[in-house]
Amino acid sequence: MALLERNDTNAVATLTMNAPEKLNALSDGMLAALQDEFGRLMDDTEIRAVVIKGAGKAFCAGHDLKEMTAGRQAEDGGKAYFKDLFDRCATMMTTIRKLPQPVIAQPHGIATAAGCQLVASCDMAVAAEGTKFGVNGVNIGLFCSTPMVALSRNIPRKQAFEMLTTGQFISAERAEALGLVNRVVPHDQLDAATQELAETVAAKLGAAVKIGKEAFYSQIEMSVDDAYEYTGDVMVQNMLYRDTAEGIAAFLEKRPPDWQH
Amino acid sequence: MALLERNDTNAVATLTMNAPEKLNALSDGMLAALQDEFGRLMDDTEIRAVVIKGAGKAFCAGHDLKEMTAGRQAEDGGKAYFKDLFDRCATMMTTIRKLPQPVIAQPHGIATAAGCQLVASCDMAVAAEGTKFGVNGVNIGLFCSTPMVALSRNIPRKQAFEMLTTGQFISAERAEALGLVNRVVPHDQLDAATQELAETVAAKLGAAVKIGKEAFYSQIEMSVDDAYEYTGDVMVQNMLYRDTAEGIAAFLEKRPPDWQH
Amino acid sequence: MALLERNDTNAVATLTMNAPEKLNALSDGMLAALQDEFGRLMDDTEIRAVVIKGAGKAFCAGHDLKEMTAGRQAEDGGKAYFKDLFDRCATMMTTIRKLPQPVIAQPHGIATAAGCQLVASCDMAVAAEGTKFGVNGVNIGLFCSTPMVALSRNIPRKQAFEMLTTGQFISAERAEALGLVNRVVPHDQLDAATQELAETVAAKLGAAVKIGKEAFYSQIEMSVDDAYEYTGDVMVQNMLYRDTAEGIAAFLEKRPPDWQH
Repeated sequence: MALLERNDTNAVATLTMNAPEKLNALSDGMLAALQDEFGRLMDDTEIRAVVIKGAGKAFCAGHDLKEMTAGRQAEDGGKAYFKDLFDRCATMMTTIRKLPQPVIAQPHGIATAAGCQLVASCDMAVAAEGTKFGVNGVNIGLFCSTPMVALSRNIPRKQAFEMLTTGQFISAERAEALGLVNRVVPHDQLDAATQELAETVAAKLGAAVKIGKEAFYSQIEMSVDDAYEYTGDVMVQNMLYRDTAEGIAAFLEKRPPDWQH
Repeated sequence: MALLERNDTNAVATLTMNAPEKLNALSDGMLAALQDEFGRLMDDTEIRAVVIKGAGKAFCAGHDLKEMTAGRQAEDGGKAYFKDLFDRCATMMTTIRKLPQPVIAQPHGIATAAGCQLVASCDMAVAAEGTKFGVNGVNIGLFCSTPMVALSRNIPRKQAFEMLTTGQFISAERAEALGLVNRVVPHDQLDAATQELAETVAAKLGAAVKIGKEAFYSQIEMSVDDAYEYTGDVMVQNMLYRDTAEGIAAFLEKRPPDWQH
Repeated sequence: MALLERNDTNAVATLTMNAPEKLNALSDGMLAALQDEFGRLMDDTEIRAVVIKGAGKAFCAGHDLKEMTAGRQAEDGGKAYFKDLFDRCATMMTTIRKLPQPVIAQPHGIATAAGCQLVASCDMAVAAEGTKFGVNGVNIGLFCSTPMVALSRNIPRKQAFEMLTTGQFISAERAEALGLVNRVVPHDQLDAATQELAETVAAKLGAAVKIGKEAFYSQIEMSVDDAYEYTGDVMVQNMLYRDTAEGIAAFLEKRPPDWQH
């Protein structure tokens, strides 16, 4: 079995991290496998939504501490390796935002440290009841500084600060209340619930979702005035799509759209 | 009946969008009527709070799709018209922040697309039970890119992303939990509850509310250090108002203030 | 008794504002006492967490209005004094973020205006049941413009705007739901619950918490790309700490770490 499996169903690509004995740690190999798959999805117009899940009893427990420890053997004590590792990890996380398809995290069991960051970095998340979320690196002396980039843009500040400095887990229900996940479902309904959300999104006009997703993350870092100037242009571009004209016409004529997408 | 009606009661101006047969769509006419009224309110020191509501069964269902479709007949396929339309709409939305008076949205029935943006763009909102909120343009192939500027500054990211890409509605209670509205009341108490909130605000010192509202939206886009430098000056200016000196003196002397405002 | 008392227990410094007859107002003296104590804590590697609480029936009721009113006697009507006062207050509030130790506010009774700002400015907060939070300066004609800098970075916009313009109090439970405090406990368990949270944080590797706290507030004001570039370097630096290497090794070997910290 590959380190990362891909299964396509109804325009939804499901990526399954498959290193259950390592709790699907984001090893060098796993990071590369995710990045490679994202590279293929970037220009794939058949796939309209992506799901990321984990095999075994956990979603993802973060970085591979054994690999990191081995990296210390280098002459510089691992400095160059760590720098490269965190660069590759950040690139993988931010590539999720750059994909044209919405990406849904499907955590279950445990999502900790960079595994919690992966949930926070996805566009949406559906969690199994019982999932524990944490940014617990502080417990071993490694503050989750890169995970907090994503986490602190998902949940309120004091609650993020508490997770980061206490290293304590929060429940799936708490994660939903704070904004880290979109919904929580019983574990035996997890695949179905995530697939349903993915297919709902996949049924939309792909070009509109693509331009909208890109605009979402761009405008959120702008002032309101700049954001309106930018998104106004995005709306004009979107209005001029042939399929959008058809979508609006169909709506006014109360018939289903005849989309070429 | 005018497209936009205005009724003034106890220093509160209530603007009623009055095109119920179009679900109070933000047509060219409605946008102009709102902008004109805002122009009059900008320098009106008698009015201390503004309410925006809709006549008929919905608050506002967004842009006027028939007008937009008609705009496609131009030689450029509507490009110039759309650009101008989204500019005018953004100007109307951002003028709400620039008004010296707090502006309260009073949604009921349906608040979708630019109608949901209008709720998000107001300073506060009181919703009727049963109101449905959505940014559902994606359903017809037009991603709600301009509405998301306001929406993503009101509610958490993953929840905004879900609304934008699924096109699904959320309930008034969910809107309150996410931060999009301040409170939800039974429909038959909607006018009274909104008026009560508006009059509470209207009873404050107008000059203090004006300088504070302006500072609210300015400082929120700054770094913390810049925000403190700026608001420190605002506080000094506020302290030097004659009525503020009187307000503080009255408080210390346990008597009502004798405000000239 | 001093204006600000300090008690150190198990690496936790508890600062008690001690002017109960003034509801622990942030007078010139109290601001100076807090700033002085922060100065001592800045380089104190024995203390790993800080708690701020208030003596008497309230946490803190904000600025000292009598002092401020006395300041009006100056030739400039108080302008220079007010400017200096708000500068000193902002410096005190932002010094909390710069301390290497996590700082926990422990509000009870009343936390209003600059007192509510103090809660919002701390890294975390544990509140007693029954605590009332408000930014109610607007009631006396002085909009809480500096408190809103901290408040609007803790809770959603519309809810912050409502507090600022209505001057109304919110309950401890509401404050928790909005994100202003981390948890609410019965008053007779307040000291113990806060101390427990503080000791949990104090048990972590101090150097990791210090670098992480600094990074938390720095990265949150950056774009995501800049934040990752910056925190990637922070992670490398953290990985190279001797105690972090030991913490990771101990974790892999399933034994307690032998930290020199």
